[in-house]
Amino acid sequence: MAKRVTGPEIEKLIQLLAKVPGLGPRSARRAALHLIKKKDQLLGPLSNAMGEAYDKVKICSRCGNVDTVDPCTVCTDTQRDQSVIIVVEDVSDLWALERAAAMNAAYHVLGGTLSPLDGIGPDDLNIRGLIDRIGEGGIRELIIAVNATVEGQTTAHYITDQLQGLDVKITRLAHGVPVGGELDYLDEGTLAAALRARTVI
Amino acid sequence: MAKRVTGPEIEKLIQLLAKVPGLGPRSARRAALHLIKKKDQLLGPLSNAMGEAYDKVKICSRCGNVDTVDPCTVCTDTQRDQSVIIVVEDVSDLWALERAAAMNAAYHVLGGTLSPLDGIGPDDLNIRGLIDRIGEGGIRELIIAVNATVEGQTTAHYITDQLQGLDVKITRLAHGVPVGGELDYLDEGTLAAALRARTVI
Repeated sequence: MAKRVTGPEIEKLIQLLAKVPGLGPRSARRAALHLIKKKDQLLGPLSNAMGEAYDKVKICSRCGNVDTVDPCTVCTDTQRDQSVIIVVEDVSDLWALERAAAMNAAYHVLGGTLSPLDGIGPDDLNIRGLIDRIGEGGIRELIIAVNATVEGQTTAHYITDQLQGLDVKITRLAHGVPVGGELDYLDEGTLAAALRARTVI
Repeated sequence: MAKRVTGPEIEKLIQLLAKVPGLGPRSARRAALHLIKKKDQLLGPLSNAMGEAYDKVKICSRCGNVDTVDPCTVCTDTQRDQSVIIVVEDVSDLWALERAAAMNAAYHVLGGTLSPLDGIGPDDLNIRGLIDRIGEGGIRELIIAVNATVEGQTTAHYITDQLQGLDVKITRLAHGVPVGGELDYLDEGTLAAALRARTVI
Protein backbone atom coordinates (compact mmCIF):
# COMPACT_ATOMS: atom_id res chain seq x y z
CA MET A 1 0.00 0.00 0.00
CA ALA A 2 1.17 3.48 -0.80
CA LYS A 3 0.77 4.70 2.77
CA ARG A 4 0.06 2.91 6.01
CA VAL A 5 -3.67 2.80 6.60
CA THR A 6 -3.77 0.09 9.25
CA GLY A 7 -1.70 -1.38 12.07
CA PRO A 8 1.58 -3.25 11.43
CA GLU A 9 0.10 -6.39 13.05
CA ILE A 10 -2.67 -6.46 10.44
CA GLU A 11 -0.23 -5.84 7.57
CA LYS A 12 1.90 -8.70 8.88
CA LEU A 13 -1.18 -10.95 8.95
CA ILE A 14 -1.97 -10.04 5.33
CA GLN A 15 1.63 -10.72 4.24
CA LEU A 16 1.61 -14.17 5.82
CA LEU A 17 -1.86 -15.05 4.51
CA ALA A 18 -0.63 -14.21 0.99
CA LYS A 19 1.84 -17.10 1.30
CA VAL A 20 -0.93 -19.66 1.86
CA PRO A 21 -1.49 -21.66 -1.35
CA GLY A 22 -4.77 -20.59 -2.93
CA LEU A 23 -4.49 -17.05 -1.63
CA GLY A 24 -2.64 -14.20 -3.34
CA PRO A 25 -1.94 -10.64 -2.18
CA ARG A 26 -5.45 -9.46 -3.07
CA SER A 27 -7.38 -12.39 -1.64
CA ALA A 28 -5.14 -12.29 1.46
CA ARG A 29 -6.45 -8.80 2.19
CA ARG A 30 -10.02 -9.95 1.70
CA ALA A 31 -9.37 -12.98 3.90
CA ALA A 32 -7.78 -10.83 6.62
CA LEU A 33 -10.76 -8.45 6.70
CA HIS A 34 -13.17 -11.38 6.83
CA LEU A 35 -11.19 -12.94 9.70
CA ILE A 36 -11.21 -9.64 11.57
CA LYS A 37 -14.93 -9.19 11.07
CA LYS A 38 -15.51 -12.74 12.31
CA LYS A 39 -13.03 -12.26 15.13
CA ASP A 40 -14.61 -14.57 17.66
CA GLN A 41 -16.12 -17.12 15.27
CA LEU A 42 -13.08 -17.52 13.00
CA LEU A 43 -9.92 -15.52 13.76
CA GLY A 44 -9.59 -16.70 17.36
CA PRO A 45 -10.42 -20.39 16.70
CA LEU A 46 -8.16 -20.48 13.63
CA SER A 47 -5.27 -18.95 15.56
CA ASN A 48 -5.75 -21.58 18.27
CA ALA A 49 -6.08 -24.43 15.77
CA MET A 50 -2.83 -23.37 14.10
CA GLY A 51 -1.08 -23.17 17.43
CA GLU A 52 -2.34 -26.65 18.37
CA ALA A 53 -1.27 -28.06 15.01
CA TYR A 54 2.13 -26.38 15.38
CA ASP A 55 2.65 -27.95 18.79
CA LYS A 56 1.32 -31.41 18.01
CA VAL A 57 1.92 -32.22 14.36
CA LYS A 58 4.23 -35.15 13.68
CA ILE A 59 5.42 -36.97 10.59
CA CYS A 60 4.81 -40.72 11.02
CA SER A 61 8.24 -42.36 11.28
CA ARG A 62 6.82 -45.48 9.67
CA CYS A 63 4.82 -44.28 6.63
CA GLY A 64 5.44 -40.52 6.39
CA ASN A 65 1.79 -39.51 6.92
CA VAL A 66 1.05 -36.26 8.78
CA ASP A 67 -0.65 -36.80 12.12
CA THR A 68 -0.52 -35.83 15.78
CA VAL A 69 0.59 -39.29 16.87
CA ASP A 70 3.56 -41.39 15.75
CA PRO A 71 3.05 -44.06 14.44
CA CYS A 72 0.05 -42.45 12.74
CA THR A 73 -3.66 -43.30 12.84
CA VAL A 74 -3.39 -45.24 9.56
CA CYS A 75 -0.38 -47.34 10.64
CA THR A 76 -1.98 -48.38 13.93
CA ASP A 77 -5.44 -49.01 12.47
CA THR A 78 -6.06 -52.73 13.12
CA GLN A 79 -9.15 -52.61 10.86
CA ARG A 80 -6.86 -52.05 7.87
CA ASP A 81 -5.13 -54.73 5.89
CA GLN A 82 -1.58 -53.82 6.89
CA SER A 83 -0.19 -56.41 4.47
CA VAL A 84 -1.03 -54.15 1.50
CA ILE A 85 0.95 -50.90 1.17
CA ILE A 86 -0.09 -48.14 -1.21
CA VAL A 87 2.99 -46.11 -2.18
CA VAL A 88 2.24 -42.41 -2.84
CA GLU A 89 4.30 -39.31 -3.59
CA ASP A 90 2.74 -36.98 -1.09
CA VAL A 91 0.47 -36.92 1.97
CA SER A 92 -2.15 -35.16 -0.19
CA ASP A 93 -2.27 -38.28 -2.40
CA LEU A 94 -2.79 -40.48 0.66
CA TRP A 95 -5.71 -38.28 1.72
CA ALA A 96 -7.14 -38.24 -1.83
CA LEU A 97 -7.04 -42.05 -2.07
CA GLU A 98 -8.68 -42.35 1.34
CA ARG A 99 -11.51 -40.09 0.21
CA ALA A 100 -12.11 -42.57 -2.63
CA ALA A 101 -12.58 -45.17 0.15
CA ALA A 102 -11.87 -47.99 -2.30
CA MET A 103 -9.12 -49.76 -0.37
CA ASN A 104 -8.55 -50.43 3.29
CA ALA A 105 -4.79 -50.67 3.21
CA ALA A 106 -1.64 -49.16 4.71
CA TYR A 107 0.35 -46.39 3.00
CA HIS A 108 3.89 -45.26 2.40
CA VAL A 109 4.63 -41.62 1.54
CA LEU A 110 7.77 -41.14 -0.57
CA GLY A 111 7.87 -37.39 -0.09
CA GLY A 112 8.35 -36.62 -3.78
CA THR A 113 9.65 -38.21 -6.98
CA LEU A 114 13.08 -38.83 -8.42
CA SER A 115 14.11 -35.77 -10.38
CA PRO A 116 17.79 -35.60 -11.35
CA LEU A 117 17.32 -32.11 -12.81
CA ASP A 118 16.17 -30.83 -9.42
CA GLY A 119 18.88 -32.83 -7.67
CA ILE A 120 16.40 -35.21 -6.03
CA GLY A 121 17.92 -38.70 -5.83
CA PRO A 122 16.80 -41.92 -4.11
CA ASP A 123 18.29 -40.82 -0.78
CA ASP A 124 16.05 -37.74 -0.72
CA LEU A 125 12.95 -39.92 -0.82
CA ASN A 126 11.66 -42.30 1.82
CA ILE A 127 12.57 -45.39 -0.24
CA ARG A 128 14.93 -46.91 2.35
CA GLY A 129 12.05 -46.92 4.85
CA LEU A 130 9.84 -48.74 2.34
CA ILE A 131 12.46 -51.45 1.74
CA ASP A 132 12.87 -51.83 5.51
CA ARG A 133 9.12 -52.24 5.98
CA ILE A 134 9.02 -54.96 3.34
CA GLY A 135 12.12 -56.58 4.89
CA GLU A 136 10.24 -56.91 8.20
CA GLY A 137 7.93 -59.32 6.38
CA GLY A 138 4.14 -59.66 6.34
CA ILE A 139 3.67 -57.48 3.22
CA ARG A 140 2.01 -59.27 0.32
CA GLU A 141 1.23 -56.43 -2.08
CA LEU A 142 2.69 -53.04 -2.93
CA ILE A 143 0.44 -50.77 -4.98
CA ILE A 144 2.55 -48.05 -6.57
CA ALA A 145 0.17 -45.10 -6.83
CA VAL A 146 2.50 -42.33 -8.00
CA ASN A 147 1.37 -39.64 -10.42
CA ALA A 148 1.22 -40.61 -14.11
CA THR A 149 4.01 -38.13 -14.89
CA VAL A 150 7.49 -38.85 -16.26
CA GLU A 151 9.01 -38.33 -12.78
CA GLY A 152 6.34 -40.50 -11.18
CA GLN A 153 6.90 -43.34 -13.63
CA THR A 154 10.69 -43.10 -13.27
CA THR A 155 10.27 -43.39 -9.52
CA ALA A 156 7.94 -46.37 -9.93
CA HIS A 157 10.53 -48.17 -12.10
CA TYR A 158 13.32 -47.42 -9.64
CA ILE A 159 11.32 -48.81 -6.72
CA THR A 160 10.35 -51.91 -8.71
CA ASP A 161 14.05 -52.48 -9.53
CA GLN A 162 15.07 -52.12 -5.90
CA LEU A 163 12.51 -54.68 -4.80
CA GLN A 164 13.54 -57.36 -7.32
CA GLY A 165 13.82 -60.72 -5.63
CA LEU A 166 11.70 -59.79 -2.62
CA ASP A 167 8.60 -61.90 -2.18
CA VAL A 168 6.03 -59.15 -2.73
CA LYS A 169 3.52 -58.54 -5.53
CA ILE A 170 3.98 -55.11 -7.08
CA THR A 171 1.05 -53.48 -8.87
CA ARG A 172 0.26 -50.03 -10.25
CA LEU A 173 -2.92 -48.01 -10.76
CA ALA A 174 -4.87 -48.72 -13.96
CA HIS A 175 -4.73 -46.20 -16.79
CA GLY A 176 -8.00 -45.34 -18.51
CA VAL A 177 -10.80 -42.88 -19.08
CA PRO A 178 -11.61 -40.83 -15.93
CA VAL A 179 -15.13 -41.49 -14.66
CA GLY A 180 -17.33 -38.72 -16.08
CA GLY A 181 -14.66 -37.81 -18.63
CA GLU A 182 -15.43 -36.99 -22.26
CA LEU A 183 -13.38 -38.87 -24.85
CA ASP A 184 -13.08 -35.81 -27.05
CA TYR A 185 -11.12 -33.97 -24.37
CA LEU A 186 -8.72 -36.80 -23.50
CA ASP A 187 -5.16 -37.08 -24.78
CA GLU A 188 -4.13 -39.85 -27.18
CA GLY A 189 -2.00 -41.65 -24.57
CA THR A 190 -4.94 -42.06 -22.20
CA LEU A 191 -7.26 -43.20 -24.99
CA ALA A 192 -4.71 -45.74 -26.26
CA ALA A 193 -4.21 -47.07 -22.72
CA ALA A 194 -7.97 -47.30 -22.19
CA LEU A 195 -8.37 -49.25 -25.43
CA ARG A 196 -5.54 -51.66 -24.62
CA ALA A 197 -6.96 -52.29 -21.14
CA ARG A 198 -10.55 -52.68 -22.37
CA THR A 199 -12.74 -55.00 -20.35
CA VAL A 200 -15.65 -57.28 -21.28
CA ILE A 201 -19.05 -55.83 -20.38
CA MET B 1 -13.05 -38.17 4.78
CA ALA B 2 -14.37 -41.69 4.87
CA LYS B 3 -12.13 -42.75 7.76
CA ARG B 4 -9.87 -40.81 10.04
CA VAL B 5 -6.38 -40.71 8.55
CA THR B 6 -4.94 -37.87 10.61
CA GLY B 7 -5.22 -36.25 14.02
CA PRO B 8 -8.37 -34.36 15.11
CA GLU B 9 -6.30 -31.17 15.56
CA ILE B 10 -5.36 -31.27 11.88
CA GLU B 11 -8.92 -31.99 10.77
CA LYS B 12 -10.09 -29.05 12.87
CA LEU B 13 -7.48 -26.83 11.18
CA ILE B 14 -8.72 -27.92 7.75
CA GLN B 15 -12.35 -27.26 8.70
CA LEU B 16 -11.54 -23.73 9.86
CA LEU B 17 -9.30 -22.96 6.87
CA ALA B 18 -12.19 -23.96 4.58
CA LYS B 19 -14.18 -21.02 6.02
CA VAL B 20 -11.58 -18.48 4.89
CA PRO B 21 -12.82 -16.64 1.78
CA GLY B 22 -10.86 -17.82 -1.25
CA LEU B 23 -10.38 -21.32 0.17
CA GLY B 24 -12.81 -24.22 -0.15
CA PRO B 25 -12.72 -27.71 1.37
CA ARG B 26 -10.20 -28.98 -1.16
CA SER B 27 -7.85 -26.00 -1.13
CA ALA B 28 -8.11 -25.91 2.68
CA ARG B 29 -6.56 -29.39 2.79
CA ARG B 30 -3.81 -28.31 0.41
CA ALA B 31 -3.23 -25.17 2.48
CA ALA B 32 -3.11 -27.16 5.73
CA LEU B 33 -0.52 -29.57 4.34
CA HIS B 34 1.57 -26.68 3.02
CA LEU B 35 1.39 -24.94 6.41
CA ILE B 36 2.43 -28.14 8.17
CA LYS B 37 5.34 -28.67 5.78
CA LYS B 38 6.43 -25.07 6.35
CA LYS B 39 5.84 -25.37 10.06
CA ASP B 40 8.48 -22.95 11.27
CA GLN B 41 8.46 -20.56 8.33
CA LEU B 42 4.68 -20.23 7.98
CA LEU B 43 2.43 -22.14 10.40
CA GLY B 44 4.03 -20.80 13.57
CA PRO B 45 4.35 -17.16 12.39
CA LEU B 46 0.80 -17.17 10.99
CA SER B 47 -0.61 -18.57 14.23
CA ASN B 48 1.19 -15.82 16.15
CA ALA B 49 0.11 -13.10 13.70
CA MET B 50 -3.52 -14.21 14.06
CA GLY B 51 -3.22 -14.22 17.83
CA GLU B 52 -1.72 -10.72 17.78
CA ALA B 53 -4.41 -9.46 15.41
CA TYR B 54 -7.07 -11.06 17.61
CA ASP B 55 -5.74 -9.31 20.70
CA LYS B 56 -5.07 -5.92 19.18
CA VAL B 57 -7.52 -5.29 16.36
CA LYS B 58 -9.88 -2.35 16.85
CA ILE B 59 -12.56 -0.66 14.78
CA CYS B 60 -11.84 3.08 14.63
CA SER B 61 -14.62 4.82 16.57
CA ARG B 62 -14.32 7.84 14.30
CA CYS B 63 -14.22 6.46 10.73
CA GLY B 64 -14.84 2.69 11.03
CA ASN B 65 -11.45 1.63 9.62
CA VAL B 66 -9.80 -1.53 10.96
CA ASP B 67 -6.58 -0.87 12.87
CA THR B 68 -4.74 -1.65 16.09
CA VAL B 69 -5.14 1.89 17.43
CA ASP B 70 -8.28 3.98 17.96
CA PRO B 71 -8.56 6.55 16.42
CA CYS B 72 -6.91 4.83 13.47
CA THR B 73 -3.73 5.62 11.55
CA VAL B 74 -5.72 7.40 8.82
CA CYS B 75 -7.72 9.60 11.23
CA THR B 76 -4.62 10.78 13.12
CA ASP B 77 -2.46 11.28 10.01
CA THR B 78 -1.63 15.01 10.04
CA GLN B 79 -0.22 14.72 6.50
CA ARG B 80 -3.72 14.06 5.20
CA ASP B 81 -6.27 16.67 4.29
CA GLN B 82 -8.74 15.89 7.05
CA SER B 83 -11.23 18.38 5.61
CA VAL B 84 -12.09 15.95 2.79
CA ILE B 85 -13.92 12.74 3.73
CA ILE B 86 -14.27 9.83 1.29
CA VAL B 87 -17.37 7.82 2.21
CA VAL B 88 -17.05 4.08 1.45
CA GLU B 89 -19.15 1.00 2.07
CA ASP B 90 -16.47 -1.26 3.47
CA VAL B 91 -12.93 -1.21 4.86
CA SER B 92 -11.83 -3.11 1.74
CA ASP B 93 -12.94 -0.11 -0.36
CA LEU B 94 -10.89 2.22 1.84
CA TRP B 95 -7.84 0.01 1.30
CA ALA B 96 -8.51 -0.20 -2.46
CA LEU B 97 -8.76 3.59 -2.81
CA GLU B 98 -5.56 4.02 -0.80
CA ARG B 99 -3.74 1.67 -3.17
CA ALA B 100 -4.78 3.99 -6.02
CA ALA B 101 -2.92 6.70 -4.04
CA ALA B 102 -4.86 9.42 -5.87
CA MET B 103 -6.21 11.33 -2.86
CA ASN B 104 -4.73 12.17 0.50
CA ALA B 105 -7.96 12.49 2.42
CA ALA B 106 -9.81 11.12 5.43
CA TYR B 107 -12.38 8.31 5.17
CA HIS B 108 -15.69 7.22 6.60
CA VAL B 109 -16.73 3.55 6.46
CA LEU B 110 -20.51 3.04 6.37
CA GLY B 111 -20.30 -0.69 7.02
CA GLY B 112 -22.66 -1.64 4.17
CA THR B 113 -25.48 -0.16 2.09
CA LEU B 114 -29.14 0.47 2.66
CA SER B 115 -31.04 -2.66 1.69
CA PRO B 116 -34.67 -2.79 2.84
CA LEU B 117 -35.03 -6.37 1.54
CA ASP B 118 -32.23 -7.51 3.85
CA GLY B 119 -33.62 -5.38 6.67
CA ILE B 120 -30.66 -2.98 6.62
CA GLY B 121 -31.87 0.54 7.41
CA PRO B 122 -30.07 3.83 8.12
CA ASP B 123 -29.54 2.91 11.78
CA ASP B 124 -27.58 -0.21 10.81
CA LEU B 125 -25.02 1.90 8.96
CA ASN B 126 -22.54 4.38 10.39
CA ILE B 127 -24.44 7.40 8.96
CA ARG B 128 -25.07 9.08 12.31
CA GLY B 129 -21.31 9.16 12.89
CA LEU B 130 -20.78 10.83 9.52
CA ILE B 131 -23.34 13.56 10.26
CA ASP B 132 -21.69 14.12 13.65
CA ARG B 133 -18.27 14.48 12.04
CA ILE B 134 -19.60 17.08 9.63
CA GLY B 135 -21.42 18.81 12.49
CA GLU B 136 -18.10 19.29 14.27
CA GLY B 137 -17.10 21.57 11.39
CA GLY B 138 -13.95 21.81 9.33
CA ILE B 139 -15.17 19.47 6.56
CA ARG B 140 -15.32 21.08 3.13
CA GLU B 141 -15.93 18.12 0.84
CA LEU B 142 -17.58 14.73 1.07
CA ILE B 143 -16.73 12.30 -1.75
CA ILE B 144 -19.35 9.55 -1.83
CA ALA B 145 -17.43 6.53 -3.15
CA VAL B 146 -20.01 3.76 -2.77
CA ASN B 147 -20.30 0.94 -5.28
CA ALA B 148 -22.14 1.72 -8.53
CA THR B 149 -24.90 -0.73 -7.60
CA VAL B 150 -28.58 -0.01 -6.94
CA GLU B 151 -28.01 -0.32 -3.17
CA GLY B 152 -24.93 1.86 -3.33
CA GLN B 153 -26.72 4.61 -5.26
CA THR B 154 -29.74 4.45 -2.93
CA THR B 155 -27.40 4.90 0.01
CA ALA B 156 -25.67 7.82 -1.74
CA HIS B 157 -29.02 9.55 -2.28
CA TYR B 158 -30.07 8.97 1.30
CA ILE B 159 -26.86 10.49 2.64
CA THR B 160 -27.12 13.48 0.29
CA ASP B 161 -30.68 14.07 1.53
CA GLN B 162 -29.63 13.90 5.18
CA LEU B 163 -26.91 16.47 4.62
CA GLN B 164 -29.16 19.03 2.89
CA GLY B 165 -28.52 22.50 4.30
CA LEU B 166 -25.11 21.67 5.76
CA ASP B 167 -22.25 23.72 4.36
CA VAL B 168 -20.36 20.90 2.69
CA LYS B 169 -19.72 20.13 -0.96
CA ILE B 170 -20.89 16.61 -1.87
CA THR B 171 -19.34 14.83 -4.85
CA ARG B 172 -19.37 11.31 -6.25
CA LEU B 173 -16.93 9.19 -8.29
CA ALA B 174 -16.98 9.70 -12.06
CA HIS B 175 -18.59 7.05 -14.26
CA GLY B 176 -16.72 6.05 -17.39
CA VAL B 177 -14.63 3.51 -19.23
CA PRO B 178 -12.26 1.59 -16.90
CA VAL B 179 -8.60 2.24 -17.72
CA GLY B 180 -7.47 -0.62 -19.96
CA GLY B 181 -11.09 -1.64 -20.61
CA GLU B 182 -12.36 -2.61 -24.06
CA LEU B 183 -15.50 -0.83 -25.25
CA ASP B 184 -16.90 -4.00 -26.80
CA TYR B 185 -17.12 -5.66 -23.39
CA LEU B 186 -18.70 -2.74 -21.53
CA ASP B 187 -22.38 -2.44 -20.74
CA GLU B 188 -24.56 0.24 -22.34
CA GLY B 189 -24.99 2.19 -19.12
CA THR B 190 -21.26 2.67 -18.70
CA LEU B 191 -20.78 3.64 -22.35
CA ALA B 192 -23.65 6.14 -22.20
CA ALA B 193 -22.19 7.66 -19.01
CA ALA B 194 -18.73 7.85 -20.58
CA LEU B 195 -20.15 9.62 -23.63
CA ARG B 196 -22.13 12.11 -21.57
CA ALA B 197 -19.09 12.90 -19.42
CA ARG B 198 -16.71 13.14 -22.39
CA THR B 199 -13.81 15.54 -21.97
CA VAL B 200 -11.90 17.75 -24.41
CA ILE B 201 -8.51 16.28 -25.42
